[in-house]
Amino acid sequence: MNNNTADTVERWGIFELVLSGPTSGNPFVEITFAAEFSFKNRVIYADGFYDGDGIYRVRCMPDAVGEWRYVTRSACPDLAGITGSFVCVEPSAGNHGPLRVHNTYHFAYADGTPYVEVGTTCYAWTHQGDEMEEQTLATLKSAPFNKIRMCIFPKHYAYNANEPVYYPYERDAGGNWDFTRFNPAYFRHQEKRVGQLRDLGIEADLILLHPYDRWGFAHMDAESNDRYLRYVVARLAAYRNVWWSMANEYDLMPWLTIADWDRMFRVVQETDPYRHLRSIHNCREFYDHAKRWVTHASIQRWDVEQTRLWREQYRKPVVIDECRYEGNIPRQWGCITAEEMVRRFWETAVRGGYCGHGETYLHPQDLLWWSKGGVLHGQSPARLAFFRHILEQGPADGHEPIDGVIEYRWPCVGKSGEYYLTYFGIHQPALVDLNLPAGIRFRGEIIDTWNMTVSSCVPEILSGSVSVAMPGKPYMALRLRKIT
Amino acid sequence: MNNNTADTVERWGIFELVLSGPTSGNPFVEITFAAEFSFKNRVIYADGFYDGDGIYRVRCMPDAVGEWRYVTRSACPDLAGITGSFVCVEPSAGNHGPLRVHNTYHFAYADGTPYVEVGTTCYAWTHQGDEMEEQTLATLKSAPFNKIRMCIFPKHYAYNANEPVYYPYERDAGGNWDFTRFNPAYFRHQEKRVGQLRDLGIEADLILLHPYDRWGFAHMDAESNDRYLRYVVARLAAYRNVWWSMANEYDLMPWLTIADWDRMFRVVQETDPYRHLRSIHNCREFYDHAKRWVTHASIQRWDVEQTRLWREQYRKPVVIDECRYEGNIPRQWGCITAEEMVRRFWETAVRGGYCGHGETYLHPQDLLWWSKGGVLHGQSPARLAFFRHILEQGPADGHEPIDGVIEYRWPCVGKSGEYYLTYFGIHQPALVDLNLPAGIRFRGEIIDTWNMTVSSCVPEILSGSVSVAMPGKPYMALRLRKIT
Repeated sequence: MNNNTADTVERWGIFELVLSGPTSGNPFVEITFAAEFSFKNRVIYADGFYDGDGIYRVRCMPDAVGEWRYVTRSACPDLAGITGSFVCVEPSAGNHGPLRVHNTYHFAYADGTPYVEVGTTCYAWTHQGDEMEEQTLATLKSAPFNKIRMCIFPKHYAYNANEPVYYPYERDAGGNWDFTRFNPAYFRHQEKRVGQLRDLGIEADLILLHPYDRWGFAHMDAESNDRYLRYVVARLAAYRNVWWSMANEYDLMPWLTIADWDRMFRVVQETDPYRHLRSIHNCREFYDHAKRWVTHASIQRWDVEQTRLWREQYRKPVVIDECRYEGNIPRQWGCITAEEMVRRFWETAVRGGYCGHGETYLHPQDLLWWSKGGVLHGQSPARLAFFRHILEQGPADGHEPIDGVIEYRWPCVGKSGEYYLTYFGIHQPALVDLNLPAGIRFRGEIIDTWNMTVSSCVPEILSGSVSVAMPGKPYMALRLRKIT
Repeated sequence: MNNNTADTVERWGIFELVLSGPTSGNPFVEITFAAEFSFKNRVIYADGFYDGDGIYRVRCMPDAVGEWRYVTRSACPDLAGITGSFVCVEPSAGNHGPLRVHNTYHFAYADGTPYVEVGTTCYAWTHQGDEMEEQTLATLKSAPFNKIRMCIFPKHYAYNANEPVYYPYERDAGGNWDFTRFNPAYFRHQEKRVGQLRDLGIEADLILLHPYDRWGFAHMDAESNDRYLRYVVARLAAYRNVWWSMANEYDLMPWLTIADWDRMFRVVQETDPYRHLRSIHNCREFYDHAKRWVTHASIQRWDVEQTRLWREQYRKPVVIDECRYEGNIPRQWGCITAEEMVRRFWETAVRGGYCGHGETYLHPQDLLWWSKGGVLHGQSPARLAFFRHILEQGPADGHEPIDGVIEYRWPCVGKSGEYYLTYFGIHQPALVDLNLPAGIRFRGEIIDTWNMTVSSCVPEILSGSVSVAMPGKPYMALRLRKIT
């Protein structure tokens, strides 16, 4: 049976070929299945996967408009040598393709649209049941976030005692997890949520492994880990909004060595035909983000003022995925103020990096956004929407550090001669001295990042060496835009 | 002529012997003059100094009650072999003697009285003329500060364009400074101000060299530097409230090598009979505070959360003499908020260190407290008075870091089993989990460090593993005192 889902598919959409095949034995490990998708002289090799009940699927995210052809590969005669074609058409509105590293330190969609990362964190939101998960999606719809960090596996941790709705594996006769038999319903559910995020314009930063576990999924052997990674990639890589995060706090899984992480990175790198963004998140010790399979540095640190050092160290985008969370729980990482959360986004941005949000307010039913999603209670999201709005008005190639324009060594980013953005955080200068390029006129604006206002500088038009009066309050930014 | 100023002197007061001697030639370099002061079998060797007009002085700060005898030493017959005695009596109220390092990481007066350092900074206050200097003293009288950082030499820098009233040297016939001829009036003036600080209970952290100079005092040769240090020590060491700071931002004087600083440290160490506290202050690079002539680490850094690391590195008291200043000037180091200034004191304290204040608000006549003194405009001093009041109620041997009592790794200091103090800074936990020693009852108090209030915890009496409700606001501290 050749049951491809559509004859046409939009660019960076998903073409899916569905075939029937064997159900006997263990198809997850005994049946190899893949397809070669070709566009002109270019071939993409994509693994297929078994979806239970004799159903085999293989997916393609076409990246070029025109006719695509395919042929399946399998050691199983029923699944081998199936050919066909589909037509890739122009993307629909809002579909800009997958994200890529752009200009060394930044990101852009495949169609060139700039992307200013404003992420949030809901580790286990897809394991909370439909009602709460739908609530999370409703919240995200009007939230400022364009990326979400989320775990594939369920989570066991403080405030996370509930069982997930689904489990990723079947149990064997003895009641133990059989890591050779995936539970397709579990992964179909994850896929559905990833697709809904995509439709909201939100990147899914998928955390493949994590230490917060009481089921044993954090302690699989190397063969099982690799099998799991291949299965996830085969299922999810065709979703254009997928990022791969190898782990959350990888260094809290000391039973896995750096060599294990290197190997698993390569499994993902080699299996994913679309080269989605790849990273790994630390607790204390950084993984060496300079390694070639790492596309960007995913960092947990509270001292975001180090952003520029990390850029220089790794020569890649710096994403501080965890700078601590707005909230009021008794943990140091979970009770910063909204003001501080917003400040960390700005401090990171004016050093050429990107930051991430999370929220941990105590709740009588332990419904904390950081893990379970639901609704937001904090005051930072509104300011992060304003932050994103301001940053999206900046240089298309990203905000790059610029020295020497804002006296005296205030952090400043922008595009030389055209655009400067600086931020003073907890500092409250009443005056700022500028060394603007001579002969170019700039419009100066004071941005109150907390009260979300933009007002003209006095004087408004600035050039050369000039001083600007500032309000003498914290949380102010200064923007200078060339008058054209 | 034997003109000792008094027959009795209080413990840690100043005995001064005044002699007349030669005026010809250059007495500053040609006449050696010193005295041996003896108490029982103990001898203190103190350099004397030429005070101009044929007057030679030598001073002693006796540290034991009873009869002291002296004999002068000089190559000049007029000044040699003069003997005499005086009686050292009990100190007057408020005289606790000089400060010493106590319990490795802390300070105490010589009589054992604990000292919680709350310093401020007025680099050039003694070079502003009597009117403003008297105003500074009046301000200090009701301010919370018990130490002040101040330069011996005048200062040239932003906001510091005025000439000093006095100069430390005479000029030669060519109009150049003669570094072999001190101006006694200059040093008499400095001494007077140091004495006035002493009478206010304020330690004078005397900065011996600094780079902010347009006169050449920062660029003397080694012989002149050493001569200067010996002269200052001979004049000022008998003041019990003196600390020696070898330099401010020593690393901004690259024409002096580390070997130069080592040598000058030893000059001060060997010349000062009373072993006053000795330190050196950095801009970017730390001097190696582990060297034996350094009594405590004097640090310029804004990331005061590193305090405990520096304690462990140097095994000495950590004094963050410059954590930036409350103010609104366009420099990063001079425009933090009052809230941030106060926060840095608390963050340092709950890691077992000490912090320093400064204030830099723009002023139409450039009268910034940080350099010139005058009056205070900021909101931090009132909170630092409260801070000092709270800290002075703590353990007499100093606040030592204690792990494991405040879950989860909040910084905590105190005395095990008796006293715990923790602080949450910009964090706003609504709940704190404690692991108090079983079987001991503690009274819990919530300290609002900004609003300067102390209120009882709910519950007030705490023991063992227990959770305490907190206000969920930033700038809160929690104090736990054993009920006796």
